[in-house]
Amino acid sequence: MPFDKLVRFELDGRACYGNLIDTSGNEFKVTKLIGGLEEGFSADGDEVIIVSKLLCPLERTPIIQCVGVNYRRHATEAKLTVPAYPVIFSKPPATLAGPHDSIPIHLSCQEKLDYEGELCVIIGRDAKNVSSSNALDYVLGYTAGNDISARFFQLPENAGGQYGYAKSFDNFAPIGPAIWSQESVGDPQKLRLVTRVNGEVRQETGCDDMIWSVRQIVEHLSRGTTLRAGTVIMAGTPEGVGFFSKRFLKDGDVVEIEIKGLGKIENKMVFE
Amino acid sequence: MPFDKLVRFELDGRACYGNLIDTSGNEFKVTKLIGGLEEGFSADGDEVIIVSKLLCPLERTPIIQCVGVNYRRHATEAKLTVPAYPVIFSKPPATLAGPHDSIPIHLSCQEKLDYEGELCVIIGRDAKNVSSSNALDYVLGYTAGNDISARFFQLPENAGGQYGYAKSFDNFAPIGPAIWSQESVGDPQKLRLVTRVNGEVRQETGCDDMIWSVRQIVEHLSRGTTLRAGTVIMAGTPEGVGFFSKRFLKDGDVVEIEIKGLGKIENKMVFE
Repeated sequence: MPFDKLVRFELDGRACYGNLIDTSGNEFKVTKLIGGLEEGFSADGDEVIIVSKLLCPLERTPIIQCVGVNYRRHATEAKLTVPAYPVIFSKPPATLAGPHDSIPIHLSCQEKLDYEGELCVIIGRDAKNVSSSNALDYVLGYTAGNDISARFFQLPENAGGQYGYAKSFDNFAPIGPAIWSQESVGDPQKLRLVTRVNGEVRQETGCDDMIWSVRQIVEHLSRGTTLRAGTVIMAGTPEGVGFFSKRFLKDGDVVEIEIKGLGKIENKMVFE
Repeated sequence: MPFDKLVRFELDGRACYGNLIDTSGNEFKVTKLIGGLEEGFSADGDEVIIVSKLLCPLERTPIIQCVGVNYRRHATEAKLTVPAYPVIFSKPPATLAGPHDSIPIHLSCQEKLDYEGELCVIIGRDAKNVSSSNALDYVLGYTAGNDISARFFQLPENAGGQYGYAKSFDNFAPIGPAIWSQESVGDPQKLRLVTRVNGEVRQETGCDDMIWSVRQIVEHLSRGTTLRAGTVIMAGTPEGVGFFSKRFLKDGDVVEIEIKGLGKIENKMVFE
C-alpha cells in the first residue's frame, strides 16, 4: 500500500490525493499520490508539500451506510433493545463533507441539532457475500466521522421511526482528515473515539464497546448486496450524544471527532 | 421534450436511449434518442426499431428515496400512525433493475419475500429547497416500480424498526418499462397502480389515495438537501402487500406492477 494516511488537498487549483506525513497544528505535510480508488494509488515523487487545509479524503461515495445502536452503553442510554442483526440506515452521497468544512444548517434543522462521533470504515473494492473472517480484506482504511443529526426530524411523531431523513441534509457527514490504511490500523476494535464540542469532551469510548464488530458489519452489509468501492460505513455512535443530556448544538459551535492518536475532524456549525 | 416515453434498449451490443412508440406483447417499437440526463435528449432520426426487451430506463441513479406509509388504506391495513412528515428510507444504487429482469433472491431473503407496487418519480435536474407549488418542474417523469422487500429483515426483532436493509439487496428495485414524461402525465395523482402475482391482482389503487402528494414529497426530500438528477422516488405502496395476507412470494413467481393505461414491469423471482 503506497499510503498510511490517504488525504486529499488542493494544489494549483486542482484536488490531488496524497499521503499525510506529519501534522502540526493547522499545517499538514503531504506527498503526492496518483491514481484513485478504482485503479489504485502510487507515489508521485517524494517532494514534501505543506498545505493548510485538507479536503474530504473521498472525492465521492456511492452511499453512506450507518449502523444504529452499536455501542453497549449507548444502547443503555437510549433505552433501545438490541435486535438480532445490526440496525441499518443510510445517508445519501451529497451528505459527504471535508474535515475542516463549515456545515450550513438549514433553518428547519436548527432545533435539536446533534452530533454523533463515529468510526468510519471505507470499502476499498466491491464486496458481496463476504464472511466476517476475511471482511477486512475489503477495507481500504478508517477515518473519523460525524453523523450530524437534526433530532427534530428523528422524533417518532415526525419520522414514523425511520432515522435516515434527520441525517440526510447536505454536508451532514463530514469525514477525515485522513483514511488510515487497514495495514497501519490492524485491529479497528482497539481504536478509541473522542467527541468534543467547543473543546469540551462529550463522548469518549473504545471501539471494543461495539456490539457488532467491523468484520460483522461488513458481512451483514454485503449479504446479497454489492458494497461498492468507496462506500462509507459509519459504525455507530457511543454514549454521550446531546439528545439525552439535552445539550444541543448552537450556531457557531465547533465539533471535533478524533480517533485517538490518529487525527481529528473539526467542523463549525453555521446556522443559515 | 423529445420523448413521451423514455426507454433504454440494446442495439448492436450497446445500450441506447429511445422513445417508445408502441407496445404489442413483447414487441416494442422505438426511435433512437441521443444525449442523457445531464445534457438532455434529442431525436436521432426517425427510424422505427423493433426490440424484444427493454433495459432499465435509467442507466444509474444516485439514490432511491422511498416513502413509507403513504396510502391511507395501507396505513389502516398496517395499523401504522401517520406522522407529521412523510416517512423516508432509502435503497442503494445497486438495487436498480430492469423491467423484464429476473431477480436473484439470496438464500437469506427467501423467507417472507414480498412485493410493493409503487409509482416512481424520476428527478430530472438537481433540486434543493423546492416548494410544492413548483416541485413538478423538477420531475422528468414517472415509471412503475417494485420495492421488493425481504420481510424477515424488516421484523422489529431483526431490524430494530429500520426499513431500509430489508429492501436493499441487489436488484430489489426493478423499474420501468418507460419513463412517462411529466408533460404527458400531467397530474400524477390521477394515475392508478395495479400489482399482479402470476396474473392475480393483489393491489389496485388510485394515486389519489396517497397521504403525501408527489409535490409534497419532492418539497420534503429537497429541504436542505440536494436531490440529484436521476434520483428515483418510490412514492409508497398501497394496501394489499403479502405481509398482511400472509401470501409471500415463492421461487418462480412473476410480479407485475402496472401503471394503468401506460405499461408494466414483469419480473420473475429466482431463488438462489
